[in-house]
Amino acid sequence: MSLSCNSSLTSIRITSSELQTRAGKLLEHVTEKRLSGVVLFDNYYILYLTGFAFIPTERPIAFLMNARGEKAMFVPRLEREHAVSETGFERVVDYVEYPCDPHPFQILKKTLDSMGISGDIGADNDGYPWIYGYRGPSLSELTGANVIKVSAFLEDAMMIKSEAEVNLIRESVKWGNLAHRLLQRYTKVGATETEVSLRASHEATLAMLDTLGPLYRSQSLFHEGASAGYRGQIGRNAAIPHALANNITFQAGDVLVTGAGAVVWGYTSELERTMVVGRPSEGQREMFAHMKKAQEVAFDALRPGARCSDVDRAVRLYYEENSLPVASPAPGGQQRRESDSDFRGLMPFWKHHTGHAIGLRMHEGPFLDVGDHTVIRPRMVFTVEPGFYAPDMGGFRHSDTLVVLDDGIEILTYYPRELESLIID
Amino acid sequence: MSLSCNSSLTSIRITSSELQTRAGKLLEHVTEKRLSGVVLFDNYYILYLTGFAFIPTERPIAFLMNARGEKAMFVPRLEREHAVSETGFERVVDYVEYPCDPHPFQILKKTLDSMGISGDIGADNDGYPWIYGYRGPSLSELTGANVIKVSAFLEDAMMIKSEAEVNLIRESVKWGNLAHRLLQRYTKVGATETEVSLRASHEATLAMLDTLGPLYRSQSLFHEGASAGYRGQIGRNAAIPHALANNITFQAGDVLVTGAGAVVWGYTSELERTMVVGRPSEGQREMFAHMKKAQEVAFDALRPGARCSDVDRAVRLYYEENSLPVASPAPGGQQRRESDSDFRGLMPFWKHHTGHAIGLRMHEGPFLDVGDHTVIRPRMVFTVEPGFYAPDMGGFRHSDTLVVLDDGIEILTYYPRELESLIID
Repeated sequence: MSLSCNSSLTSIRITSSELQTRAGKLLEHVTEKRLSGVVLFDNYYILYLTGFAFIPTERPIAFLMNARGEKAMFVPRLEREHAVSETGFERVVDYVEYPCDPHPFQILKKTLDSMGISGDIGADNDGYPWIYGYRGPSLSELTGANVIKVSAFLEDAMMIKSEAEVNLIRESVKWGNLAHRLLQRYTKVGATETEVSLRASHEATLAMLDTLGPLYRSQSLFHEGASAGYRGQIGRNAAIPHALANNITFQAGDVLVTGAGAVVWGYTSELERTMVVGRPSEGQREMFAHMKKAQEVAFDALRPGARCSDVDRAVRLYYEENSLPVASPAPGGQQRRESDSDFRGLMPFWKHHTGHAIGLRMHEGPFLDVGDHTVIRPRMVFTVEPGFYAPDMGGFRHSDTLVVLDDGIEILTYYPRELESLIID
Repeated sequence: MSLSCNSSLTSIRITSSELQTRAGKLLEHVTEKRLSGVVLFDNYYILYLTGFAFIPTERPIAFLMNARGEKAMFVPRLEREHAVSETGFERVVDYVEYPCDPHPFQILKKTLDSMGISGDIGADNDGYPWIYGYRGPSLSELTGANVIKVSAFLEDAMMIKSEAEVNLIRESVKWGNLAHRLLQRYTKVGATETEVSLRASHEATLAMLDTLGPLYRSQSLFHEGASAGYRGQIGRNAAIPHALANNITFQAGDVLVTGAGAVVWGYTSELERTMVVGRPSEGQREMFAHMKKAQEVAFDALRPGARCSDVDRAVRLYYEENSLPVASPAPGGQQRRESDSDFRGLMPFWKHHTGHAIGLRMHEGPFLDVGDHTVIRPRMVFTVEPGFYAPDMGGFRHSDTLVVLDDGIEILTYYPRELESLIID
């Protein structure tokens, strides 16, 4: 039984007609730019256009489309059946193996020639990237063609989500919520972050698979199911937002920054919460309140027609115009120079922009950043997650995932945001 | 307490003097090629040269070294403390945020100028790849420099492991063994692959963390601890080697292809076994025996001084010169044409080359492949994993990790290989 081949089965995956619409838009771009065709190597672009998920390795995989809209997949023999069943393409060209002899790109060249893809070729990269030991010529070296980047077009297209995509993100949110609920339940003084994270992720994933059954496929490269954890953001380490994990034991007074999500047919969501172990100190309460307020400033500024930079500027203004009630020392003993906007108000506790788009990738553009002037449009999906980082106290950050509506926003994540709900007794 | 700053603590991580030796060899290459310096973006190359592990995102990170051997890291402010503590570099240049204004690459340009890196610049890629929504100029567009690829040099250097690297791979093997032992123990008719994989991985990881304590850091981008699972390679699906996971229920008669490993200070290993649920059929026994024999053919051919292609040719010869005892149908109803080496003997069941090198990356070069004529040298580490794939019966593959010695090989994985040890009652 294959879900992809029987449209009468209930399914939540992206339909093949939606995939065809996406490829059709790319074809319009090819026509407009007078390209002979496109060659895409990026696994996310290929997943977006074909529904085919794969783990990129040293064996190159490519999506090809010529100016007549004829599509083909180029894959190692190893992936042939998988590519045929996932894409439904009539033309799946395989090569024996990498590196082999001749090099797979010799087969690619023949395929491009036979499809009439030459001269001006659109691509996401001039050749397959040299990952996992792959070596090979660039597309321009191989074909003598003029390679024109189409990545910006694809990035722009992927920004606006369809109803089906938003629904998959909604589904992802639910299971991230469960994983986070379990994470909070199992977090106790004396437990370690890894045991709690593994248990919460493990149980949430089994519940998710038992609940969704055949409706579910991960279609992700690295993850299956739901997960929740701490990424080392515990106690003092919380001040380093993307620190890699250590197996730290929870202690009273720790400030914890969590992260939870789930991958559903490739789509993901983000839920992060700041939790405090034991009775929060006054300083912790103060910082938490600022974090929560800064997030609300972003929610208020985020609306269709505004620019991404407007949202981040509003949040930065909040940092600049507010300060701690007592003359708290700035992080790292830095001198506060009120003339320098980097050090005004709460800016010493700032480390990163307000948020980013999310979908098939955990981060994607546009960014809620003072340097990104993209106009916010309905059906963009963003995380909103301004953070405060104090070396002596920890990091403070909530992240919520929201979708832009015609007349506002809908916050998709619904885990409690207030401090009283996030205290570990 | 920081392991990296206190050399008197017992540690199994790569020492800073070994990291300096690696960078020193790259500097020799820079000098030899008369480059003004190098710029590296690839996270594995950066981990190899600096010990700094990070998750690549839309925020570019680079390692810089000029022709005088002066090193610097280029990171977002978010990663500053992390980069300083992991690399110990005096010079860590940060930019405020991506995309921000000015673009981070403007800061990179200033840094390159100040280090005298211009003209002929070595790099692994002409600019930061456009991942997770990143957009930006290429290095050559940014600087007007002539960008010369140094990836092949780095790939060659990473092929030969030091004693410390082999020891980390040895440590990885142990915990992959535990995860696999638990995986086999919990696999039963009626259980599902995900519940068994999660439980085995979960318990093995906790045992590993409790055992190694502060000796352990993952330093991996996506994994912590040990894991074992099936990757959807169950029953009939096993014939698709890299199929993404589904939550399949084990049934009597299933042929299972497993995968287990652990990541230790970034280094990994590979252990895969073919298991059969219930009493194996004659056909299954026959195919298993061929798989095991083909692996032994590879072990025999793999020795210092031989070429990688010799090993794969020996294995292919085994496929070509042997056949099933009865006239079994070839996969997919393909016609057997004895004149075509693709269809001779057992070749219809062939899908991929014999193996690959492994280390910081799950796959790396050189490859045990007829097209890779690299001479095998002591302290290369390989997986050996010829496979047989029959749509009606499943996939058959063991993978073992070995290190090349001065006068032979040492197989590092020690999980039982014979069928009688791999039957699930």
